[in-house]
Amino acid sequence: MAMQQAEQGHVLIGQSGGPTAVINASLVGAIHEAQRLDAVQGIYGALNGIEGALHRRIIDLRRESAATIDALLHTPSAALGSCRYKLQPDDPARVVDLCRELNIRYFLYIGGNDSADTAHQIAQAAAEMHYELRVIGIPKTIDNDLPITDHCPGYGSAARFIAAATQDSARCTEAMPSHYPVKIIEVMGRYAGWLAGAAALGKRTPDDAPHLIYVPERPFDPAQFLSAVRATVRRLGYCVVIVAEHLADASGKQIGEDQAQGKDAFGHTLVEGVAQTLTRMVNKELGLRARFDKPGDMQRMSTALISRTDREEAYQVGRMAMRYAVRGVTGKMVTLVRAAGPRYACETGLADLAAIANSQKLLPPAYLDAAGTGMTPAFLEYARPLIGDPLPQHAMLRGELI
Amino acid sequence: MAMQQAEQGHVLIGQSGGPTAVINASLVGAIHEAQRLDAVQGIYGALNGIEGALHRRIIDLRRESAATIDALLHTPSAALGSCRYKLQPDDPARVVDLCRELNIRYFLYIGGNDSADTAHQIAQAAAEMHYELRVIGIPKTIDNDLPITDHCPGYGSAARFIAAATQDSARCTEAMPSHYPVKIIEVMGRYAGWLAGAAALGKRTPDDAPHLIYVPERPFDPAQFLSAVRATVRRLGYCVVIVAEHLADASGKQIGEDQAQGKDAFGHTLVEGVAQTLTRMVNKELGLRARFDKPGDMQRMSTALISRTDREEAYQVGRMAMRYAVRGVTGKMVTLVRAAGPRYACETGLADLAAIANSQKLLPPAYLDAAGTGMTPAFLEYARPLIGDPLPQHAMLRGELI
Repeated sequence: MAMQQAEQGHVLIGQSGGPTAVINASLVGAIHEAQRLDAVQGIYGALNGIEGALHRRIIDLRRESAATIDALLHTPSAALGSCRYKLQPDDPARVVDLCRELNIRYFLYIGGNDSADTAHQIAQAAAEMHYELRVIGIPKTIDNDLPITDHCPGYGSAARFIAAATQDSARCTEAMPSHYPVKIIEVMGRYAGWLAGAAALGKRTPDDAPHLIYVPERPFDPAQFLSAVRATVRRLGYCVVIVAEHLADASGKQIGEDQAQGKDAFGHTLVEGVAQTLTRMVNKELGLRARFDKPGDMQRMSTALISRTDREEAYQVGRMAMRYAVRGVTGKMVTLVRAAGPRYACETGLADLAAIANSQKLLPPAYLDAAGTGMTPAFLEYARPLIGDPLPQHAMLRGELI
Repeated sequence: MAMQQAEQGHVLIGQSGGPTAVINASLVGAIHEAQRLDAVQGIYGALNGIEGALHRRIIDLRRESAATIDALLHTPSAALGSCRYKLQPDDPARVVDLCRELNIRYFLYIGGNDSADTAHQIAQAAAEMHYELRVIGIPKTIDNDLPITDHCPGYGSAARFIAAATQDSARCTEAMPSHYPVKIIEVMGRYAGWLAGAAALGKRTPDDAPHLIYVPERPFDPAQFLSAVRATVRRLGYCVVIVAEHLADASGKQIGEDQAQGKDAFGHTLVEGVAQTLTRMVNKELGLRARFDKPGDMQRMSTALISRTDREEAYQVGRMAMRYAVRGVTGKMVTLVRAAGPRYACETGLADLAAIANSQKLLPPAYLDAAGTGMTPAFLEYARPLIGDPLPQHAMLRGELI
């Protein structure tokens, strides 16, 4: 793109949506780059994302020590606080008014699909209001469901957690098949199966766990599920099943929806989790003892299982967002572009925020096997470099009987 | 103890009960020591604990490579397979018959309370049958509920997982209080609160998560729980609660018991998990959105969060068990004895298997605060050295408003 005269002013950075283990690395990348650039004066952080911009809860990131900023590289979750806030009609103009008043010329917003929509609306409002504000989205989501970008910072670390924890936890079921032969592990990922699929990254042989993976991209068939679990237990003595947090049957009914959980204080129906529903189903219908692991937020927050590649890329997209903004780019999200060739490498690119906003990228059919319950080599090749260092290899005894 | 003439013969080693992240380190310690000792000829492993001894599923551990044995130090779960099997009346004699037939003179059994009972019964049967068999128990349980020993190998690593994962996961709730202000984390530990209490090891200030810890040692009062959660949310904006997997109210009724989960194929009532029950309770009664994390077997299997201290101690109790057995000791379990003094150190000792069998050590009152929902400095001082290296410190922004 053409270099433009850098606009002198402050930068405002916000974090939005579900936090990840490396969302702060993007913040640090943006701060480090801002510190380097003459065009950037104040480096401000909006507390709890756009809510902070709307309620003037803005902090001065130049007042933080270099040691604190560096330590954020190893600190999971959003250091500025995050939010899930749907913009009201006059909110974008309010944000632009604030920027004008404070001489904020750069607005960097770290988030997923909804956050890209927020950033897009603010970019539009600034254009309509003739205020020169450069708005750049920085991708972040463990769900890996943003279009255009090769993958999303945050995904690699969550994928590493799920791959490692599945490998570890499955050994427990394998060691005691007569006790609990069936284990179900519930994995996040919204309406995409990217993270559920990552559970397969620890498999070394076809009989290794996980044996069945159920992703939102395919309708869930309870009869097929029960029959596949029973067949696996008959064949191997145990069965480890990965289920995505959102599964629906062919009619579109969400699994767990018909459980009588009552309503919350606002009258919303309480939906039971997928893992709970399916664990009970296995107990009741198959007479096989089943348990579930539901790591919940642990899977996206684990300091111990951060992927180095993911952290480095999260840093880079933050850094590049600041650089692009000063070059005059606006209304774009930074993307990761995988280089061709045998060795994994990524560069950054740009995509229109409008094309990212409220859109989602699902697993392509080529990443799921014919049965729809296993991942193909193409998926494993795609995902393996994202989790960083190779997973630890468990030792297996040869087990020669005397 | 007096040194006795070492009996020439083979050693049989078994693993039993819920696996841990370091149960294999005890196996490796025993193998390494056996390899060193002239009195020990064959080094045998019973597959799936006592079930392997009863069904002659016994492997030759001298046929495994040194590299495989060493790699077991970093491999969670029971490499020999485990079991939960209650001895039938003629089982102990069958095991002794097998030992006599194969010239097994040493029987080492790695496990918790129930496994100590199994080992005790076999030691008794050997004495009654006038077969010289040295039976030694090697302690293992994430529950940390064995009496006499200072603590149990396996606990330190599970405690490290729970402390780190709580610290990490809580940051997610803290970052987005308007989304889900209440998080409940369900922790294992059978009928003791040792592991639930370990969640407090990551706290740096009194207001850090976890804010409330519910352990089995105290009757659970739903009204107190709801009121404490509401008060914490009012004060801090969010609340992270640790709940042990078994909680009962003052009348002894288990939390989750009255949920209509139906029966399994054997007619056993399906009990809902504590976290699920309490999450729904918070949603319904307080109108606060709540979620739960239930790491399940992940908490006892995590390779990434093994405590180095725990692994080293697990290795030592395995090594010492073999050494004690060759010295003529029988009917004992190896214990860990904490040395007095400012620096943490443990030696090994011995306790009667009969005193360990089917007994459990609960949290002493001095380890719980007055409200019964927080851990005292005495507990933290006890537990901190067991989790090994210090936990990573999260960075916190000063957050000076502009």
